[in-house]
Parts: sequence; C-alpha cells; structure tokens
Amino acid sequence: MKEVKIGCSSSYQKYGKRLDTAIIQVPSNSNISGLFTSNKFPAAPVKVAKRNLTNLDKKKKTALFINAGNANAATGPEGLKDINKMFANYKDVNVLPFSTGVIGERLDLQRYGKSFFNAYKNLGRSNWKNFATSIMTTDKKEKIVKKSIKIKGETINFIGIAKGSAMIEPNMATMLSFVFTDLKISKLKLDKIHRLACESSFNSITIDGDQSTNDSSLLIATGSSLISLSKANEKKILETLQDIFYSLAEKIVLDAEGATKLISITVKGLKTENECKTVAKNIANSLLVKTAAFGEDPNWGRILMAVGNTNISFDEKKFNLKLGKLQVFRNNKLSSSYSEKLGLKEFKKRKIEIVIKLGDSNKTSKVLTSDLSKDYVSMNADYRS
Amino acid sequence: MKEVKIGCSSSYQKYGKRLDTAIIQVPSNSNISGLFTSNKFPAAPVKVAKRNLTNLDKKKKTALFINAGNANAATGPEGLKDINKMFANYKDVNVLPFSTGVIGERLDLQRYGKSFFNAYKNLGRSNWKNFATSIMTTDKKEKIVKKSIKIKGETINFIGIAKGSAMIEPNMATMLSFVFTDLKISKLKLDKIHRLACESSFNSITIDGDQSTNDSSLLIATGSSLISLSKANEKKILETLQDIFYSLAEKIVLDAEGATKLISITVKGLKTENECKTVAKNIANSLLVKTAAFGEDPNWGRILMAVGNTNISFDEKKFNLKLGKLQVFRNNKLSSSYSEKLGLKEFKKRKIEIVIKLGDSNKTSKVLTSDLSKDYVSMNADYRS
Repeated sequence: MKEVKIGCSSSYQKYGKRLDTAIIQVPSNSNISGLFTSNKFPAAPVKVAKRNLTNLDKKKKTALFINAGNANAATGPEGLKDINKMFANYKDVNVLPFSTGVIGERLDLQRYGKSFFNAYKNLGRSNWKNFATSIMTTDKKEKIVKKSIKIKGETINFIGIAKGSAMIEPNMATMLSFVFTDLKISKLKLDKIHRLACESSFNSITIDGDQSTNDSSLLIATGSSLISLSKANEKKILETLQDIFYSLAEKIVLDAEGATKLISITVKGLKTENECKTVAKNIANSLLVKTAAFGEDPNWGRILMAVGNTNISFDEKKFNLKLGKLQVFRNNKLSSSYSEKLGLKEFKKRKIEIVIKLGDSNKTSKVLTSDLSKDYVSMNADYRS
Repeated sequence: MKEVKIGCSSSYQKYGKRLDTAIIQVPSNSNISGLFTSNKFPAAPVKVAKRNLTNLDKKKKTALFINAGNANAATGPEGLKDINKMFANYKDVNVLPFSTGVIGERLDLQRYGKSFFNAYKNLGRSNWKNFATSIMTTDKKEKIVKKSIKIKGETINFIGIAKGSAMIEPNMATMLSFVFTDLKISKLKLDKIHRLACESSFNSITIDGDQSTNDSSLLIATGSSLISLSKANEKKILETLQDIFYSLAEKIVLDAEGATKLISITVKGLKTENECKTVAKNIANSLLVKTAAFGEDPNWGRILMAVGNTNISFDEKKFNLKLGKLQVFRNNKLSSSYSEKLGLKEFKKRKIEIVIKLGDSNKTSKVLTSDLSKDYVSMNADYRS
C-alpha cells in the first residue's frame, strides 16, 4: 500500500532511543471509520480525533499522529490546549491524534513536538514495522497482520497494526488498532463492516476488566485498488477483515502483561447472544479462574462459581462444561469420563479452551482472555505504566 | 450467652488436627434470620439450610452444623443425598448445615460424620474461639466481635463470628457469618434488621469480584434477655448490630488472601445510592487500582479510569477526588495542593481512603476492598482452595 506514507521518530523519553512517535499520512480521498472508548473520561486526543474525523476537510492532507508513553488523559482543558499547541504548525493537515501511556500527566510538548516534526520529515521513509514499534507501550512485541485476497484477478490488500497489553476489556481498552485496506468502499459501508469486525474481536477480549480512556480502532480504506465492495464480494471481504481483527485481538491477549496462557471461553444456549457474552465475560474476569489457569490447576468448580455469579437466569440442571473436547460436567453431575489427570492435561496447554452450554438455544458468544500471573501484579505494582 | 451450646471437633482431613467441624445448638424458641448467596449454583447445604429454616419444627432442638474444607457445592443431587445420610441420626434436631472449602468434591461422610458425632457429644464444652477456629478455611485469624449494651439497666449481649478471605463480593461470598444476640425480637423485625445490617457490611465488601456458592449470614436472637425490641431502643440496637456486621466485614477484608492494604472507597453525589455503589464497586474490583495499592503507587489516573468505566452517567467536570483528606483532583484539573510525594504518603498507609464526588446529590456509598498482591496469585494458583 504505497499510497500510505509512514514517518517515525523518537522523543527520547520513557523508552530511551526506541521509536515512540509516528505519523501516517493517508490519501485525502480515503474513507476513515473510527470507533472509540466508551469510558466516561475519554482522553483529550480521543475527543479531538472524534471531532476532526466528523469534520474532515477534504482539501487538506489527512494524517494520524500517534505518541506512546503519555496518554494525555485526565488532563482536563489543558490536555486539549496542549494538542492545539503541538499541532498548530500543521495547518494544511487534518490531524487525528492518538496517545497511550501514563494517565494524568501533561504531555512534554517540546520533546513530542520535536519528535513529530522529525517523523513528519521522515514521511515515506519508515515502514510498517517501524510504525508498529512506535506505538508500543508495555507491549513485548509488534502486532502486525497482513493479508491479500484476489477478487476477479485483482488484489486487495489489508494491513492491520495494533498495540495493547493491559486494561483490555470488551468495548476495547488501552488499545490502538489501525487497519488499512485499498478497497473502494463507501464511508457508510465501512462503518458497518468496522462495527461487525470489532464485535467478534476487540469487543470480545478482556485482560483485566479495565477499559481505558484512550481505546481507538480505525479502519481506513484508501480506495486505490480497482475493486469496489459489492453484493458478490461483501461476505469474503467481511470475513477477511474479521480474521484480521481477530488475529490482532488474539495477539493483544497473548501479549497481555505477565500472561502465560490464552483462555477462550465459549458460552452457548442462553436466550440471547448478549446473555452468553455476559456469562463468558464474567468467567474471563474471575480472578479465581485466571489464577487457576496460571497455576495449571483444573479447578473447574471455580468456573461453575463464575457461571452462577451473574444475574442471567438458566436451569442449573442444564449446565454442561467441556475443557477442549474433554467432557467435565453433564446431566447435573461430574462426567464419568472426567478425571483430574485429564483435566490437568487441558490446563497444561498454552491455549485453554472452556466451552459451556446452559440451555438449548443456538445463541453463542466467545471471549478471549489471559491468565493472571505474579508477573502481572509485579508489572502493575512496581512500575508506573 | 450461656443458652447457646457449642461443640467442636476435628475430622483430621485438610487441616490436620485443627478443629474443622462445629455444632451450635440454640434454644428452640430462638428466632433465626438467614440470608444466602445469590449465586445461581447454591451449594447443597445452602439449599437444605434455607428449606429447613422455613420449616422449623419448634418441638425439635435446633442446631447449626458447620464443616470447613469441603463446600459440598457443584455436587448435584448426590450432594443433597450426602447431607441426608450424614444427618440421618439427628431425628430430633432441626439441622441447619453450612459448608465452605473446595467446590466440586463429594464430602467424606465417614470422617465428617464421625467428627460431627464427636462435636455433638462435646456440646457445651467448646467456646466461641473454638467455634471461630473450626469454621476457618484459608483464614489466617479467627474473626470474633463481642459487644454488650445496657438498656434500662439490663444488658443485651451480642456476639458475631465470621469466616472468609476470598471470593468476596457484594452480596456476600465464601463467607459464613453467625451473629447471636439474647434480645427479644420478632422474626419479622429480625429479618428486617438483618438485611439492613448486611447492606452496609457484607454487601459492601469485595475482594476479587467472585461470589461463592456457599455464602450465608445468620442472625439469631435467643430472646433470653429481659429486653424486647421497641420503638425507643430500635435505633441503638440497629446501630450496634451494624457496627458488629461492619467489624466482621472489615476483618474479612483485612484477612483477604495475600492482602497488605485495606482500601475504602466512598462515592458520593450520583442520582441514587445504587449508582454510587456501582461506581465504588467498579473501582474496588479494578485490578489496576488494586495492584497500584499493593505497589504503593499513587497512580490516581487508574482510579479515574475505573470511575469512567461503568454505564453510570455524570458530568466529568464535577469529578472530585480525595485520598484521605488530600485533595487530588477538582474543578476539572489536578489540585494545585497535590503532589506525588503527598499522594505517596496516603498510599503508604495500611488503610487507604479514596473519596470521590461526582455530583451534588446527598447519596453516598462506601465499599471496602483489599489490594492485589503476588501472594494472592500464589495462594490461588498454587493451592487448591
């Protein structure tokens, strides 16, 4: 996607020499869909990005400006003024700012300002990997997913970059995600497809139940390919995007602070998909389930406890629990084929799969989470992140 | 309260020689109020205790039978049969069974049965401290609160015993509480006063957001004192009971698995008390707030994040935050009197006090919680509890 220009730089603050400032310039005729945190204290950059997105001046260039290390959140009116000051010189650009990092501290305008200045000069000279590095905070790894599909002999390209490793909770978290495609697609359709792709990915992961002030997901279509979205290709394109979003979400959970396990929780059979998700999320956020996973203790009683601990009603006799393919509980009792040893085998895996049925409907929801380790506590107790 | 007979014994299982089985026999004319877990999988003993409480045969003796180490939860119809078998020989007793410990394992009927047999023989020979010890699981300390008040020259006695150290969440948890008084009071009034006392105590504490299958609170009035509840003394008696329940709740939080801090969170100014409680609870359950407390890092941005992370609406400009008496945030910005050093001083304390105002109403709610330590993870990952 040559039409997307990347420039990165370092502000030499929290992460030393490492890149921590990035600009992405997209063609002026791109369509951009943005979804943002529902936290009641959206950070200053979230407010500005939202506002500027709805007032894009098509005569100007459009660029994303991302800094890592300082979230510019809980900074009140000063936080907004800081953004205005920092970008005062970019008069011919629609500025979409994104920040993650510490909450409650003012931006160092001089350092970040200079770093953005350098990144802007570098536009076109940095690559996707540089970009993925620049936006990391406590992430251990860059998160990049690339995909191309062929439709009628023409190639459509997709590239997704995300960051995030804690404060992850349905409806997104200290998470930034930027997915680009060269598909031709209307803004309206792009918004719709974006919401669908988020629902089964970023809105279905939870690391610590905390949702941040800065979460943002952007889906950007540059329209430079020869293919437009159509009835015939819509399904394939949506599936490709859902794959990309899901892979990014999975990467975030796998990189969760201190995580040693990826836990997927599927809940089926309740009245609505939403009820299934509520129960799945409650299991995913149970400290007792998460510590059992960390300790590789197949303590399925804790899973049952977490299932029963919401306001969703169901017939307790229908409770059916599997770990992977292993039947644990069925017909109101422990399955005769279950043994502690077989349970342990499932909990020893890097990916633990919990599957629960609570009724006969065909509704289902799947949530991803990580375990809770001593390292999570260390990382969040010992360092200001 | 000599009219209450206590007998304790050991089943020589999970806790070796330590007492783990207790019986409390109360006078037949006692009034007993019971409040139980709202978990959708109530344990077998909870079902039986609830049923027997509503069908007390006043011609029989009445006794509480409590075992520690096995919760008899998630044991299906077998769990109920086990209770019937174990207590088959106590035909002349209204049996109120209570269990806490591991979920999903069958009771060892022989060992517990024999231990109850011994405890029954010991009735009248054990004391309150023995009782408090017998019901402990991972508790480090017995939890006993005694109080006497004088009304018109007559003494009314109160004694409360509780256990619990995790799976603690509003609406109670792996928590048992037994409060006794010799006050004369009708069953109806007792139920009312019991609910009120629970609301500001057990229903306002949370350790890990998990609510257990076995939580039970009993308030028992033997009626042996010369004083009856009356309009004139109702306020004093309710306050005394609220004090006792609050002290027991505080003891549970202080004894929370791995806890090093007691955190009290007061939220004021929202439309209803319930809204205040929802926000307070969300802060109390935030892993990022709890780990910051453990690390003694006055990272108030995480508190703000947790405040904003519910579906309760408020005017973000009204957000007002104090740590103890220290003003942190006010008038949409960091208070000029706040410094990192002063914040640190508040977070160094054993009891951290968070006070938040989000509007102008006089509604308020206070929730107690503990910090999240590496030891919490160890205790819940390394041992089956």
